[in-house]
Amino acid sequence: MTLRFASRLDNVETSAIRELFKLLGKPGIISFAGGFPDAAMFDVEGVREAANAALTEEPGAALQYGATEGYQPFREQIVGLMAAKGVQSLTPDQLIVTTGSQQALDLLGKTMISPGDKVIVEGPTFLATIQCFRLYGAEVISAPTDENGVIPEALEQLIAEHQPKLVYLIPTFGNPSGVLLSLERRRQILEMAVRHQTLVVEDDPYGDLYFDAPPPPSLLALSDSVPGSRDYLAHCGSMSKVLSPGLRLGWLIAPAELLGKCVMCKQFSDAHTSTFSQATAAQYLKAGRMPATLDRVRTTYAARSKAMGDGLRSQLGDAVRFVQPQGGMFIWVQLTGARGQEKDGNALAKRAIEQGVAFVPGTPFFAQNPDASTLRLSFATADIARIEEGIARLAKAL
Amino acid sequence: MTLRFASRLDNVETSAIRELFKLLGKPGIISFAGGFPDAAMFDVEGVREAANAALTEEPGAALQYGATEGYQPFREQIVGLMAAKGVQSLTPDQLIVTTGSQQALDLLGKTMISPGDKVIVEGPTFLATIQCFRLYGAEVISAPTDENGVIPEALEQLIAEHQPKLVYLIPTFGNPSGVLLSLERRRQILEMAVRHQTLVVEDDPYGDLYFDAPPPPSLLALSDSVPGSRDYLAHCGSMSKVLSPGLRLGWLIAPAELLGKCVMCKQFSDAHTSTFSQATAAQYLKAGRMPATLDRVRTTYAARSKAMGDGLRSQLGDAVRFVQPQGGMFIWVQLTGARGQEKDGNALAKRAIEQGVAFVPGTPFFAQNPDASTLRLSFATADIARIEEGIARLAKAL
Repeated sequence: MTLRFASRLDNVETSAIRELFKLLGKPGIISFAGGFPDAAMFDVEGVREAANAALTEEPGAALQYGATEGYQPFREQIVGLMAAKGVQSLTPDQLIVTTGSQQALDLLGKTMISPGDKVIVEGPTFLATIQCFRLYGAEVISAPTDENGVIPEALEQLIAEHQPKLVYLIPTFGNPSGVLLSLERRRQILEMAVRHQTLVVEDDPYGDLYFDAPPPPSLLALSDSVPGSRDYLAHCGSMSKVLSPGLRLGWLIAPAELLGKCVMCKQFSDAHTSTFSQATAAQYLKAGRMPATLDRVRTTYAARSKAMGDGLRSQLGDAVRFVQPQGGMFIWVQLTGARGQEKDGNALAKRAIEQGVAFVPGTPFFAQNPDASTLRLSFATADIARIEEGIARLAKAL
Repeated sequence: MTLRFASRLDNVETSAIRELFKLLGKPGIISFAGGFPDAAMFDVEGVREAANAALTEEPGAALQYGATEGYQPFREQIVGLMAAKGVQSLTPDQLIVTTGSQQALDLLGKTMISPGDKVIVEGPTFLATIQCFRLYGAEVISAPTDENGVIPEALEQLIAEHQPKLVYLIPTFGNPSGVLLSLERRRQILEMAVRHQTLVVEDDPYGDLYFDAPPPPSLLALSDSVPGSRDYLAHCGSMSKVLSPGLRLGWLIAPAELLGKCVMCKQFSDAHTSTFSQATAAQYLKAGRMPATLDRVRTTYAARSKAMGDGLRSQLGDAVRFVQPQGGMFIWVQLTGARGQEKDGNALAKRAIEQGVAFVPGTPFFAQNPDASTLRLSFATADIARIEEGIARLAKAL
């Protein structure tokens, strides 16, 4: 057969992570590879009660077609969530509900990117963002980062040089970097957006997952104090990392004109996000169960993060370098090659699988200039005993 | 602010239907405008039991990230549904679950259509298909139809002339036409697909909604008897018209290479469809509740269709011409202009709203050469008394 496919497919390949995941079926393997939350943390009873309440109180709305913009009671609950995180003066009509925050990225790509347009992302960044934007024909430019996130001076230079359609950042506990963009840099980036009239997309799925102190305010929360910046800021949020990824609920906050165009595109992407999921989540939030669930997740992930950091330090010593995360789900590790030890993440990934532990090598997270000495370890899904055993296996593989 | 949007947005406008829908808030209006099923038909208790069973038996799977291809038990249930409709030898890996069948269209657009490519649709056809494909840069060509569906000779001529990337058809109780493509024509179209090596997309959300006799086999069911045709056939199915649109569940069956590319694109569109919705639907189908629900819907819609047809004949007489539907949700009406009566569907729509009844004028359903004398009436949501009253108001408006 001779189907001729769209030329946009030439810009992407199937995810390297996906290929790796096929190996994870191997029995007994300890995986630090996933980007998943721990299913044992899900508040199943809370979701059950919420789903039942939705079907009792609003069965028509929960099961019928709904507005493309989202189910109004859920939009109102999201405004409440955002207010609790310092985002004031947000109204429900300034956000739309998306089918996971992945769809928010897809809608931003669809509305903003023409073939050949440039976008800037952090190096490293979320793999699916790179691929999503490339499918719309973007040339994806990688901005340098350090342990405080993206480097503003370097970013501004790239913006001036490339005139990108948008800059995509995960400022808080980034995937895969785990790092926190400093408050000072957050302010600089908002000012830069205004100065260059360039859209900045803040992806914030992990901001709730802090361990001790809350992170600095999101770019969105901070935008009130940087005049004009709200006109150049889009913000993606998610219910996936704490409540449940299976509900597929995210949201997009953006300037009105852009948001309207995203709604138009969403009409033809999936018409609207599952109203059953939205009504369930709205009931869950209304029932006030989120704070307790969040506390439980924070405490658990904090302990696992510590266990993994301790293990890396004690068992891999000078072979690795990393910043101990203050939140999120990931440790981003650099192989130092000290004393002739393995310095290539891809090579180590293969040897690690043989030893019964899996992680994602860092290369695919870079849109340009991949640093092959990096790897991403997730501490979210394995319990402490398995984290310790997994790190021991990693040490053996090294 | 000065955001520069993607050029693909220049190909579409916000749906005319959407603008019309804003008027439907007027109190007391009887609406034949929606494409919605009747929410009163939803088996709310069945969905509740299914959701609870999903959360009891498989809470991890129902709430966690899932495979982009779909939740395996739901894929297996879909194979069962299709087998009951005469589709033999289908396996779960030959289909993927989509976020409503709208997403199947979006994925077909994303994988198949480069800017400037041509696609052929029926004139008239589903409005959101036209817009969806245009967003990917398609030039949408309209093929002529009659009371037996698309006219094969005319379609073949257009295929030869335009070399389209795909031909999109709703062969069974089409939206908006309500008509049934004849068996003979179905076979001709499959042969044509093979002869011209052209992908045919069969959208089949309404096939289950027959009133008396089942419709002819779907193109998919028929493809077993037309050698080679399966290689050029994609089929979109939906849970939205009977079980619930709010679950946002559809599926796509397509040749392996195309299906693989759709999976890759879906990864970056929404990662996967709500596993909570999928697990709920899988439990619902497993519980065997679908046949009774379907019977109830068929009986109700058959009576409403008859009431609307009778009303049109008795109250509007020679001012209208239409084919009495044998299934589906719509009557497609042509204004004849007899005895100097209104012949313009758009003008009538405005006058009808003033009289307290709404419908969608036919113009937006045409990708080319709109027939302004047409209108689409849905008989699905209003009960018989309101249908009779609505038709009386329509007569008054005329």
